[in-house]
Amino acid sequence: MNISRKRLLQRLDFLAKIGTTAEAGVRRLALSDADKQGRDLVVKWMTELGLTISIDQIGNIFGVRAGQQDIPPVMTGSHIDTVDNGGNLDGSLGVVAGLEVIETLNENNIVTIRPLVVAVFTNEEGVRFQPDMMGSLVYAGGYDLQQALATTDDRALVLGEELQRIGYAGDMPCGDIVPNAFIELHIEQGPILEQEKITLGVVENLQGISWTEVIVAGQANHAGTTPMHLRRDAGYCAAAITTFVHDLAQEIGRGQVATVGVIELQPNTINVVPSRAHMTIDLRNANNDLLIDAEQRLNSFLIKLAQNNGVDIQSNSLARFDPVGFDKAVVSLIENSAKKLRHSYRRMTSGAGHDAQMMSRVCPTAMIFTPSINGVSHNPAEATHADDVMAGANVLLHSLIALANQ
Amino acid sequence: MNISRKRLLQRLDFLAKIGTTAEAGVRRLALSDADKQGRDLVVKWMTELGLTISIDQIGNIFGVRAGQQDIPPVMTGSHIDTVDNGGNLDGSLGVVAGLEVIETLNENNIVTIRPLVVAVFTNEEGVRFQPDMMGSLVYAGGYDLQQALATTDDRALVLGEELQRIGYAGDMPCGDIVPNAFIELHIEQGPILEQEKITLGVVENLQGISWTEVIVAGQANHAGTTPMHLRRDAGYCAAAITTFVHDLAQEIGRGQVATVGVIELQPNTINVVPSRAHMTIDLRNANNDLLIDAEQRLNSFLIKLAQNNGVDIQSNSLARFDPVGFDKAVVSLIENSAKKLRHSYRRMTSGAGHDAQMMSRVCPTAMIFTPSINGVSHNPAEATHADDVMAGANVLLHSLIALANQ
Repeated sequence: MNISRKRLLQRLDFLAKIGTTAEAGVRRLALSDADKQGRDLVVKWMTELGLTISIDQIGNIFGVRAGQQDIPPVMTGSHIDTVDNGGNLDGSLGVVAGLEVIETLNENNIVTIRPLVVAVFTNEEGVRFQPDMMGSLVYAGGYDLQQALATTDDRALVLGEELQRIGYAGDMPCGDIVPNAFIELHIEQGPILEQEKITLGVVENLQGISWTEVIVAGQANHAGTTPMHLRRDAGYCAAAITTFVHDLAQEIGRGQVATVGVIELQPNTINVVPSRAHMTIDLRNANNDLLIDAEQRLNSFLIKLAQNNGVDIQSNSLARFDPVGFDKAVVSLIENSAKKLRHSYRRMTSGAGHDAQMMSRVCPTAMIFTPSINGVSHNPAEATHADDVMAGANVLLHSLIALANQ
Repeated sequence: MNISRKRLLQRLDFLAKIGTTAEAGVRRLALSDADKQGRDLVVKWMTELGLTISIDQIGNIFGVRAGQQDIPPVMTGSHIDTVDNGGNLDGSLGVVAGLEVIETLNENNIVTIRPLVVAVFTNEEGVRFQPDMMGSLVYAGGYDLQQALATTDDRALVLGEELQRIGYAGDMPCGDIVPNAFIELHIEQGPILEQEKITLGVVENLQGISWTEVIVAGQANHAGTTPMHLRRDAGYCAAAITTFVHDLAQEIGRGQVATVGVIELQPNTINVVPSRAHMTIDLRNANNDLLIDAEQRLNSFLIKLAQNNGVDIQSNSLARFDPVGFDKAVVSLIENSAKKLRHSYRRMTSGAGHDAQMMSRVCPTAMIFTPSINGVSHNPAEATHADDVMAGANVLLHSLIALANQ
């Protein structure tokens, strides 16, 4: 039993046409008109497939296919909102593949023991409204519904009112459907599978994230007349922090990554020693002990650096999420499906956040990754080879059937 | 014989009142209305002192006091243009002290063997018109007069027309007066004298400058999903270059300084590995061999860094000036004056550029520095204790007399 390649790719194309940008990317910001059109198309498909549709109070859409028994369902899904100029797979692939699983079962007249649900979560990207992964987070009880509804975008438009406006302010209480298990199919958004020439990733965990903002206050001085030992160089300190976390990540290894994405100097002039530096540090690891170790070693370094350079260093945590370990049984079940379908696969860690991360608070959860060509994501050039898309969708199909017949 | 403390400080105050800013600094950009008023005041003083005034084609002002013989004169002077919100000593001290030398000689009815000249050079700061040190550079034959006159500011106003407008487009050919020696009194604009509790600097040389712009082109990647070994991190490379030149300066020692004043990242976002970095490197040393060594070691590092990190690194020289060695005899003569007047002094290197740097192409030259309180310059807080100002002016007086009677 296989999912129709032609139909799946066609559905992805139809969805990608909603919000197409000049650069052939997709702009379907959460609760925009384009998001409404995308939701309407998905709901139309769900209706055509005979699913029972419900919308919850944060706007998540659920299409339910009845099982042989009225017991907790198996759920799949993802999101259809995008970043400003994103690709056509991030989110959409997981939703479209879920619909294709339903259509394939319909065609083959298979009714699973458990019901099956395809979910479309609200505002995963967090571009227009923060926090990201909002729909699944509220669903999982991790964020207050009223607070989420009161969120405003940068034009002061209120999320709850935008939900009303586009017709997706549902009345089902968030978290009303408690699944027996959840699987999300998603593009990797990273280079690992492509580099290792492996078809699928079986995602066993998700990195913890530690975001820190650092402000170094030194003293502006003439670049010619100030001897090195009399400087309080904020720019040098920012650079030393950057190379420190880079080397630290490589020393810790075991999946540790460290990124300094932002460095801003003042006065930012060729012949003046910088008086001030503003920078950000992004540390991630799937192992919380290693992540804590990295944070502590960074803090010790900042204290020593400030002392040695006569500067003041302030650091503020901007975000801190513990790593998420996915369900071992669901991970094994996905691996078995991939093995049966003879696709190469490897266990891996997700470096990005996903709705599955929130769903894992509610039920046994895991993810399937398809390779990203050139590791590119959040970009019109985002792509997975069609064969790999189909491999992911078929492993999703067989995994959901296996879970739903348990 | 001493210069009048009261009168010298008063003249500095009069000059500082022209172009005073809200922050109690001075804004007297070259060839602005304020510069015209400042020049008019200096010319009035020169006239009152009985000096013969001539203006050359780049607007430099010369006030000549006849000597016993009509032979090449001894010259002193500096500039009266300022940066946007500068202090009241940078430039002005050298001009005002020169006038006070004349007034002191007048009071004491002393006529030196050689004539004495007080010079006011056009556009030393280079804020409004580039290059800086323009008046003395054209005077010394280092820059074409017509090219200098054709320079425009950021409102497309032409330097030559501005000189006409303020009445300082003179007809004396540049370089017409060839001095026998030149001494410039200037504030240090650095922390060394204050740190070492020394009253005066006897400037024996001036650093060479090497300005390089570096552009690192890497690849933007997701900060979570991209393993460290698959990154092409332009931000990390910029940081590594910054720490490299910092450590290099300390390793080379012997006056080597290195400054990274500008770092700009793209996309400059917390969770994206930077794809591009733009930065500047300012290397200075009074010893050209050491400066060349620093440049070569930087270049080798850039090549290795690009190879090791899969990035492209382009570097362009923005400026390169060889160090200037001042005249040993003039330096000794200034030392002897300081010794006689019982002021503490040390030989030192100028880290900033000065008109004396250009004049040293024309005649034996050296400089006298007064301490900068807190090392601050180009800032309303720029200051030298009055006792030290007077020490500098009196050493200038006695040095000029000694030179003019040789």
